[in-house]
Amino acid sequence: MNKIILFLLLFGISNEQIISQSKVSETFNLMPWPKDIKENYGKFVIDSDISISIHPETNGRVHNAAINFLRRLTTRTGVFLNEGFPVSNKKGSIQINFQNVSQLSIETDESYTLEIKDADISITAKTDVGAIRGLETLLQLTQNTSNDYFFPGVTINDAPRFVWRGLMIDVSRHFQPVGVLKRNLEAMAAVKMNVFHWHLTDDQGWRVESNVFPKLHEEASDGLYYTQEQIKDVVAYANNLGIRVIPEFDVPGHATAILTAYPELGSKDGYRYSIERFSGVFDPTLNPTKDMTYEFLARLFAEMTPLFPDAYFHIGGDENEGKHWDENKDIQAFKKQHHLKTNHDLQTYFNIKLEKILNNLGKKMMGWDEIMTPNMPTTTVIHSWRGKNEGLEEGGSLIAAAKKGYQTVLSNGYYIDRMEPVENHYAVDPIGDVKLTELERARILGGEATMWSELVTPLTIDSRIWPRTAAIAERFWSPKAVKDVVNMKKRMKHVSFTLEELGLTHIKNRAVILRSMTNNQDIASLVTLSKICEPLKIYARNEGGVEYKTFSPFTLFAEACVVDAEDGASFNSAVNNYIKDANSETTNLVLSYLKTWAKNHDRFEALEKNPKINPLEKLSENLSATAVLLESAVENKSFSKADAIKVKASLYVLSQPFVDVEVVILEGLKALTTHFESLYKLN
Amino acid sequence: MNKIILFLLLFGISNEQIISQSKVSETFNLMPWPKDIKENYGKFVIDSDISISIHPETNGRVHNAAINFLRRLTTRTGVFLNEGFPVSNKKGSIQINFQNVSQLSIETDESYTLEIKDADISITAKTDVGAIRGLETLLQLTQNTSNDYFFPGVTINDAPRFVWRGLMIDVSRHFQPVGVLKRNLEAMAAVKMNVFHWHLTDDQGWRVESNVFPKLHEEASDGLYYTQEQIKDVVAYANNLGIRVIPEFDVPGHATAILTAYPELGSKDGYRYSIERFSGVFDPTLNPTKDMTYEFLARLFAEMTPLFPDAYFHIGGDENEGKHWDENKDIQAFKKQHHLKTNHDLQTYFNIKLEKILNNLGKKMMGWDEIMTPNMPTTTVIHSWRGKNEGLEEGGSLIAAAKKGYQTVLSNGYYIDRMEPVENHYAVDPIGDVKLTELERARILGGEATMWSELVTPLTIDSRIWPRTAAIAERFWSPKAVKDVVNMKKRMKHVSFTLEELGLTHIKNRAVILRSMTNNQDIASLVTLSKICEPLKIYARNEGGVEYKTFSPFTLFAEACVVDAEDGASFNSAVNNYIKDANSETTNLVLSYLKTWAKNHDRFEALEKNPKINPLEKLSENLSATAVLLESAVENKSFSKADAIKVKASLYVLSQPFVDVEVVILEGLKALTTHFESLYKLN
Repeated sequence: MNKIILFLLLFGISNEQIISQSKVSETFNLMPWPKDIKENYGKFVIDSDISISIHPETNGRVHNAAINFLRRLTTRTGVFLNEGFPVSNKKGSIQINFQNVSQLSIETDESYTLEIKDADISITAKTDVGAIRGLETLLQLTQNTSNDYFFPGVTINDAPRFVWRGLMIDVSRHFQPVGVLKRNLEAMAAVKMNVFHWHLTDDQGWRVESNVFPKLHEEASDGLYYTQEQIKDVVAYANNLGIRVIPEFDVPGHATAILTAYPELGSKDGYRYSIERFSGVFDPTLNPTKDMTYEFLARLFAEMTPLFPDAYFHIGGDENEGKHWDENKDIQAFKKQHHLKTNHDLQTYFNIKLEKILNNLGKKMMGWDEIMTPNMPTTTVIHSWRGKNEGLEEGGSLIAAAKKGYQTVLSNGYYIDRMEPVENHYAVDPIGDVKLTELERARILGGEATMWSELVTPLTIDSRIWPRTAAIAERFWSPKAVKDVVNMKKRMKHVSFTLEELGLTHIKNRAVILRSMTNNQDIASLVTLSKICEPLKIYARNEGGVEYKTFSPFTLFAEACVVDAEDGASFNSAVNNYIKDANSETTNLVLSYLKTWAKNHDRFEALEKNPKINPLEKLSENLSATAVLLESAVENKSFSKADAIKVKASLYVLSQPFVDVEVVILEGLKALTTHFESLYKLN
Repeated sequence: MNKIILFLLLFGISNEQIISQSKVSETFNLMPWPKDIKENYGKFVIDSDISISIHPETNGRVHNAAINFLRRLTTRTGVFLNEGFPVSNKKGSIQINFQNVSQLSIETDESYTLEIKDADISITAKTDVGAIRGLETLLQLTQNTSNDYFFPGVTINDAPRFVWRGLMIDVSRHFQPVGVLKRNLEAMAAVKMNVFHWHLTDDQGWRVESNVFPKLHEEASDGLYYTQEQIKDVVAYANNLGIRVIPEFDVPGHATAILTAYPELGSKDGYRYSIERFSGVFDPTLNPTKDMTYEFLARLFAEMTPLFPDAYFHIGGDENEGKHWDENKDIQAFKKQHHLKTNHDLQTYFNIKLEKILNNLGKKMMGWDEIMTPNMPTTTVIHSWRGKNEGLEEGGSLIAAAKKGYQTVLSNGYYIDRMEPVENHYAVDPIGDVKLTELERARILGGEATMWSELVTPLTIDSRIWPRTAAIAERFWSPKAVKDVVNMKKRMKHVSFTLEELGLTHIKNRAVILRSMTNNQDIASLVTLSKICEPLKIYARNEGGVEYKTFSPFTLFAEACVVDAEDGASFNSAVNNYIKDANSETTNLVLSYLKTWAKNHDRFEALEKNPKINPLEKLSENLSATAVLLESAVENKSFSKADAIKVKASLYVLSQPFVDVEVVILEGLKALTTHFESLYKLN
């Protein structure tokens, strides 16, 4: 990433193309931003007479999407519609036309044209998938005056930049029931994502009913698995939303669950495998030297592949350190016999056999980037995930894969479980400024956000995925030039709110957690604290993989906090503006924060205490103490040496991580302190 | 209902038995209240070492309930447990013992004994169902100091008063997805309910996949139905919680959906049936004179009965007005030929044939009380629902049915869709003071709360069922003498909050609706308004059945309001206390309400307006105007004639129903006004 461009992005400074984006209208909250949009200054008023006609009439995706569109429009506007379903035999005020029903694949045409005029809206697309993408755009355009709701007159020509725009959900570390998946699929469709990568098995659990190897779900799932009917239901639900489903069965590593059920497949004879309760990278690994292993996988995959009609099939392949291989004399002998020098060579041997099995089943094998070894055929698909964190170049394996002839998908940079600010992910462009041939470019299919679930449960998963994933979706769909961070954040905030209409719980569950923490007392003081704290980032929370177990309480303060905390960046920037120019507007803004915080500790102290809220006392107390002194400095224009010492002591306390969160207004508080120290020349 | 008892109940005055209830401890938030509870003043501290052992070890209900217990305990206490699953081969600190695994039926023994000592807890029961009831009681006993969570030392001997403690959910008027049902089943189990009555078909939709008559789900469900796998999943889920599932297929009336798919079964030849979109009682009715009708029902029920293993099978049978029968000459001729004088006689003819079909399938037929005609065999089960509203005696058909020899279940008095205050339902005792023989008493199985879904969607259904249904559950479980309303309301409030832990949405979705109404602005002013308003009661909202359609917006202000509005009774009672004795405490309480409301309109006015919130302006404005004047009267001890006139004008506006709600603090506001008028002798 070019550092100057990064700088421009981070500070919201526009380049030429960004200006062309914001020229259209600041009032449009579209996300992802379309390829081409022109205003025609019309206005389509939404009233009871609105109706939809579809050509050709089908009972498929567009019919379903049209009904959902009408329900969501009714929710958003409160308008009582006369027609609750697409109309037949007459022209609706919204006309949808498409040519073909798509069998979902990476070839599916998702382009569409949307035209809104005063009395007439049309969506035209080559495929039904394009048409439903257009309907989502139309809904996002809903606006209102004080007296009516309307769609603004625009003409949009839109098509995605990448064909693979995915979200991976890990349902092994913490199982996610069907309802959680369905609402996240709806959210994905709302931001035009089209791949759901379903990480179905790992050390912590096997999650699919198997009739061929029933011990897998009976003994390695704690009863938390999907029946085959539920799998089919989710796949059909996704398909209806224009979303492909790629299953992942992670082998040969991350295999503790499989080996709990079938220890005879393991690399360590006589080892007593049991479902893993901690997070981390573990040793249990399938034994690649036994025929039995391949017979097992062949029969298992023969059972599983019909459940997942998509051509791509993910076999994981990551983080196999081969410790149990090294400890096994038979495996060592096998390596010698087959001239396999390293464990990588042995895994490649395994992968090549696996690919044949999958090819026989009509599937294209995909795996994490460890599978890209020199001997690996280019018919496999490389899922690039490693980067600086793993001692490699950011996204390097993606470009390397494309150049070597592999199709490839990027997840490095989109690890949303790292709890990084949205702009970090938004700034990651799969291709960047690398020069590629047309053929190489075509091999870069797109990217996937990854929701690893060590620290997320059904209660919190939505708030860990959304709204940041909407910005990543934009990176995958919109033209490369769309990258104004300030504008993106404004639109993301709106999209976030509208996702709640779809049943997403990322906003409402904060109050649930805080009510639970307080035993149903007034949560206002904790809400205030949660708006200035973020969960610890980049796995600091589970350092060493020893603290949290899968059944630990994920209902504490850190769970009520989210990345991009509401009052974090906004306070820090308010302080910057105040220091630059202390006019009444900038002063009042800073004061309003300080006053809220100054008062907050009294409210906190009024709570009946319990072991869950006790650890927050230090945070609450030091925040208020700091805010009181800084408020007084603003208002009374004085700041004594003693004040400075007190503030710094409090800031030191606030800067120490505790209850698994970090305070994100320290920058602003420190800047204010320094500012007052120099301004009022302490005495 | 004896009026004196009602008076005692409504004003929380205790009789002897109520005193015995509250003697134990005001701090226990048990609901339903157990049969017998004694304190032993021990204290079991909840720490990481808590563990559960189960004897005998099984993978069934108790194992499942124990795991859920540990998860919920972790959520509630924040304690990191060492053992996340029941322990084997050693004694847990919680020991569960039971004798038999129950096949659920009305014979199932649900009694249990729970004993909590300092270091040791035991739950002993005859059946596994009794054991899981005991686990719910234990969880409800969780208490805390500022430093720890603990279970108080008690010995509880408990058993239900009635064997049938049900909740009916209508999934026809508005479809409710599996997730909605599962979370409500969990809530039912949390308050020891044991029957889920599943109203699966009505004029507005057929909701079950049928392979024998596929047009039912294909043409009469709008695509909103349960697959047979989903039905089995829900039934198994309920069974695991000790809940029986009774399906209802409503015939011969409420049959528009069936006739939409198979019009040839209808009573009006050539009529074009289509799925009903409005609420009300409609004419389409099966034709009871055609053999085809019985062949259809026999084959349909033969397909459906295996999905529902319970012995009871509900055929509806209600509200058939027979208009289409009267209009059909062939049906008239048939009546003459078979000496059936009235339509009731014809329906009895139909019901008797139906009962034979069901008996052949091993089922006991149950129907709404219209089926209790003189010729109806006493092998059927009478579901009593009609009362004063229908020109009959309250619950009269229940006692009559028991005396005539029918098993019977009461729903009259438990229609939670009427949006009545909880004390109305709580006061309804299925038997009351009626003298019955032992045999007659045994025929009264219990009762069911009924959630008809004309006006509820998945977004709002929880807030229409809970928490009031917890109090009804107590009526069905606890001894008759447990009826202190004040104490019940205190406990219900706590139970309501804990239901949120199970995923119930009755609390959190208020904010969702208000955010949607405001387009994500500050909802504080609307929250204030929603706490003093309740949705219109007793079907006033859908008067005449013409306004709302199934696809109308159920996301407006009335949906954010609930019965037993938070600030309603509490303000009215605060005013009473203030008028009786205006000391500083009573004065401050009244003032705190008035000040909140006085300020509220400014906050409301700061909102950017839209068509959804515009109609609330009148409410907000008049509330604040009234509160300003009354606040001034309290503080300045003066109230002029002009003030009185202004207040009364505002109160008049507030007393008019609008946006489908009613203001529930009028009583208090009016009392204050009258008080000040007389106190300050207006000039």
